[in-house]
Amino acid sequence: MLTNILLEEARELLVNNIIALPGRSISPETALGRVCCQDIHALHDLPPFLQSAVDGYAVSTGNGADDKHYLLKESLRPGDYPGFSLKPGQAAGVVTGGPVPSGARAVIAQEFTELKGGYVTCLSKVNQGDNLKQPGEDFHSGDIMAKRGTILSPGLIGALAAYGVSQIKVFQRPKVAVLSLGREIVPYHQVPAPGQTRDSNGIFLAALVEQDGAEVTAVETVGDMEPVQVKYRLEKLLRQADVVLTTGGAASGVCDQALNAIRLTGARPLFWGIKIKPGSHSGAAVLKSKLIIALSGNPAACATGYHLLATPSLRALQGLNPEPVRLVAVCKNTLLKKGGPRRFVRGNAFWHQNKWQVSFGPGQKSSMLRSLINYNALIDLPAGHPPVEERQEVSIILLPSCNPWDY
Amino acid sequence: MLTNILLEEARELLVNNIIALPGRSISPETALGRVCCQDIHALHDLPPFLQSAVDGYAVSTGNGADDKHYLLKESLRPGDYPGFSLKPGQAAGVVTGGPVPSGARAVIAQEFTELKGGYVTCLSKVNQGDNLKQPGEDFHSGDIMAKRGTILSPGLIGALAAYGVSQIKVFQRPKVAVLSLGREIVPYHQVPAPGQTRDSNGIFLAALVEQDGAEVTAVETVGDMEPVQVKYRLEKLLRQADVVLTTGGAASGVCDQALNAIRLTGARPLFWGIKIKPGSHSGAAVLKSKLIIALSGNPAACATGYHLLATPSLRALQGLNPEPVRLVAVCKNTLLKKGGPRRFVRGNAFWHQNKWQVSFGPGQKSSMLRSLINYNALIDLPAGHPPVEERQEVSIILLPSCNPWDY
Repeated sequence: MLTNILLEEARELLVNNIIALPGRSISPETALGRVCCQDIHALHDLPPFLQSAVDGYAVSTGNGADDKHYLLKESLRPGDYPGFSLKPGQAAGVVTGGPVPSGARAVIAQEFTELKGGYVTCLSKVNQGDNLKQPGEDFHSGDIMAKRGTILSPGLIGALAAYGVSQIKVFQRPKVAVLSLGREIVPYHQVPAPGQTRDSNGIFLAALVEQDGAEVTAVETVGDMEPVQVKYRLEKLLRQADVVLTTGGAASGVCDQALNAIRLTGARPLFWGIKIKPGSHSGAAVLKSKLIIALSGNPAACATGYHLLATPSLRALQGLNPEPVRLVAVCKNTLLKKGGPRRFVRGNAFWHQNKWQVSFGPGQKSSMLRSLINYNALIDLPAGHPPVEERQEVSIILLPSCNPWDY
Repeated sequence: MLTNILLEEARELLVNNIIALPGRSISPETALGRVCCQDIHALHDLPPFLQSAVDGYAVSTGNGADDKHYLLKESLRPGDYPGFSLKPGQAAGVVTGGPVPSGARAVIAQEFTELKGGYVTCLSKVNQGDNLKQPGEDFHSGDIMAKRGTILSPGLIGALAAYGVSQIKVFQRPKVAVLSLGREIVPYHQVPAPGQTRDSNGIFLAALVEQDGAEVTAVETVGDMEPVQVKYRLEKLLRQADVVLTTGGAASGVCDQALNAIRLTGARPLFWGIKIKPGSHSGAAVLKSKLIIALSGNPAACATGYHLLATPSLRALQGLNPEPVRLVAVCKNTLLKKGGPRRFVRGNAFWHQNKWQVSFGPGQKSSMLRSLINYNALIDLPAGHPPVEERQEVSIILLPSCNPWDY
């Protein structure tokens, strides 16, 4: 088993063990934010027929007839279809987006016409093709509308509705179970006995999973179960989910429940421990197609491990690019800490005065929840870094919840 | 009724007519993305008791006893609570995040100790307070954890779980109904007769509404209903929803269903027509506390009106800041169009080579769906603008779906 490896090695090991989940068909009403699992092509020309771009009069011109005066043959209303064609010198009232009769060479907008005695008089110059929308102007039959891996936006869903598409093939959402380890951890809604602690990581991870487009199947604790019971619990969750996230019990302390339970299931550890702070006690294992990601129990370490390891995995399972978005930002604070392993500080990135800036609040200890309430970025400081000075440029990773990973 | 007004005037009229919806209590499991409707304060100190920051030994020092050797009194496991106190020269095994016995002055990390013959030997220098986490280190009782208007992030939900909070007071989600007008419009899943058009705007708007955190109560069409029937339909939707979005039937053409139906309900129009392109045929009306926003029928005009008028309204109803995020970006394309009213072009903003850039695709006619498939910004060009040149700086509005409005 690889221990204490680089973050990039860990992420690569994870992503290389992931195949995007199979596709399923869903209705457009439930498709927002899901990911296309195949290319989508236009089924036919759109618009399907020659349309008017304006309310006005379709006219047949261009063969010697008087181009100023037209006999009004009929006026179409929205929804009407012309059962006639125009002969030279004839006009028909048409509406925006409506079909024009065959034989029409142009449409004159209403405001440039006068209707009198059954004749339409044109007050402007008419050129052939004016205000006509050709079939296929928007999409030609066979045009690609979305590639595999595209997130279904409102506009894409709308465009598919224009074709009457009632089923869209998307990647399945990953099912994720959360298992909070630690003998002292009780469900958050339970009153803890002295020495016990409420499980805040479970619901925190569940919300992160939801934010990443996956589905939470369970949030459970194990308390002081025997190792074999922890193993059974883990196996139960693995049957229901594609990914099990464990939190806690991953330190090399007195009660290492995580690695122990993982080994008992027969899962193959990919790595255990990465060279970052916080979150060094992160690991991962695979059992057939199922993935176990073990995160630290300290809240900020759990968060860091989640963003750096679980988010890329959940994105890869949905057919999305697992690479995080990085940019350089100006740091608004001073950080006295220095040295040690590569460090990730939770911060708030914002665009201000024409540059990316990032600030971080108090409560950066890995045991503390305060820095987790409001952050949208991780500041990535290299191993052995000197103290960070105000106005220094730092490399940050934007979290997908706050930012366009999916431009 | 105000007609053909400035966009900013229209938005102000709308937002000034909006009071945020009342609050309701929901469970933390369903709270992601919802908005706090009151300030939340820490109920008590967190951690609630003196904790160890590491696995190791709590020791009682500092009163003349030998600071190297300690009698091991007891070893605590995770979840244990010490029913004893330490006297000078005594030690107790403690775990990360666990309570330390009273009388402890410091905790020595396990790796700097040796255990032999019932005595703990300390291999490093010990300072009073080392590795002790004071009660309230994370939150003091009464500290503000979230202000009214804060979006519930995973971390905030987790921090509230650490307090056992099982109900969170949030603003109600706005209920929104969508009514697609136009005699020729049929539900998207229906096969259109010749001259009819599938309703793609309805589901497009429904997805935008969902993206903006509101709840869709209905997506309906009216076809060739009589005006009074359209009025009844609108009234039915207004009973079920806080906001009704209409699309289509808003031009001054042959079948102006929108304003007609709105007037028949007795709603008070706020404005009708704004000086922008596309989306000039946008209007709004109020009926008691209910809001009607009338959008164009052309897809891109409908989208523009939605982003500029409906999104701010839905945000204000949820207690969020309705102001859009603006920034300056370098345009990657040439736009030959010029002049006319203030113009909004649908584009893709992205951060590249250390600057914001924006590109726009083909299909910018307001009748076309193509530009709606993939855009995250509106390029805001002033009235009478010259053609836009490649590399020119333009003002853009980032859409909330793609960007941190909520830093």
